[in-house]
Amino acid sequence: MAYAKAKLLDGMRFVAWSDSGHGIIMDSTVDKGGFDSGPRPMELLLMSVIGCTGMDVVYILRKMRVKFDGFEVEIKGERAEHHPRVYKKVEIIYTIYGENIPEDKLKQAIDLSQNKYCAASATLKAVGELTYSYRIIPKKPDL
Amino acid sequence: MAYAKAKLLDGMRFVAWSDSGHGIIMDSTVDKGGFDSGPRPMELLLMSVIGCTGMDVVYILRKMRVKFDGFEVEIKGERAEHHPRVYKKVEIIYTIYGENIPEDKLKQAIDLSQNKYCAASATLKAVGELTYSYRIIPKKPDL
Repeated sequence: MAYAKAKLLDGMRFVAWSDSGHGIIMDSTVDKGGFDSGPRPMELLLMSVIGCTGMDVVYILRKMRVKFDGFEVEIKGERAEHHPRVYKKVEIIYTIYGENIPEDKLKQAIDLSQNKYCAASATLKAVGELTYSYRIIPKKPDL
Repeated sequence: MAYAKAKLLDGMRFVAWSDSGHGIIMDSTVDKGGFDSGPRPMELLLMSVIGCTGMDVVYILRKMRVKFDGFEVEIKGERAEHHPRVYKKVEIIYTIYGENIPEDKLKQAIDLSQNKYCAASATLKAVGELTYSYRIIPKKPDL
């Protein structure tokens, strides 16, 4: 059983914490009564998806003994026009940095995450279209 | 179009940031190669849901000119046994603190969020059962 709790601090600012003991701040825009002091909840949803699939892919690549110098995941989400404004269209882009990255293994790791393991992606897919792609950049990432 | 990006720092630790300009850390347990330095992605998913519905309810209560001294939202999630391990069963508990809270207005605000506005709740409902309840505590919250 996973557990999390959110407590209103002031304005629209909430502090939330969870079983693992970590806390975060969420906040809304000023026009909705917030202070813009933290990410919006619907942004956190996107972050949870790229964190979930990102950790899967890194875990699988390491099991496959694939060496790489950097790894990033981007996500773009388009919300429904009418309430509830769920993400109707989501695009995920994986970027891996390094020399001689075996593309077949990268593709296999990403497919395994997207089609089998990543529960956050599976959740988004239940309400919208999710597409993904990857790119391999044969150099070290910028800092 | 909403946008977020996550970048691997080390171990399983990712820093993620979004359109609004805010960043957070996600991390995994030590046995999966992480440092336990931030919430798990699937915990963030729960936090996004209680942040989303929490802000809705606070916004609606203020529109209704309901005064209260404190507000919290808790969530418990039970994940599927098999991959992808989505939340099959989710329970949300709203707690409002204050004297003379009109129960009908609180219930109306929560129902509006859950049945109309909250996109994160609607997303979870697409893969699992979501139930919710509330309690009114006629005193100030503990700090």
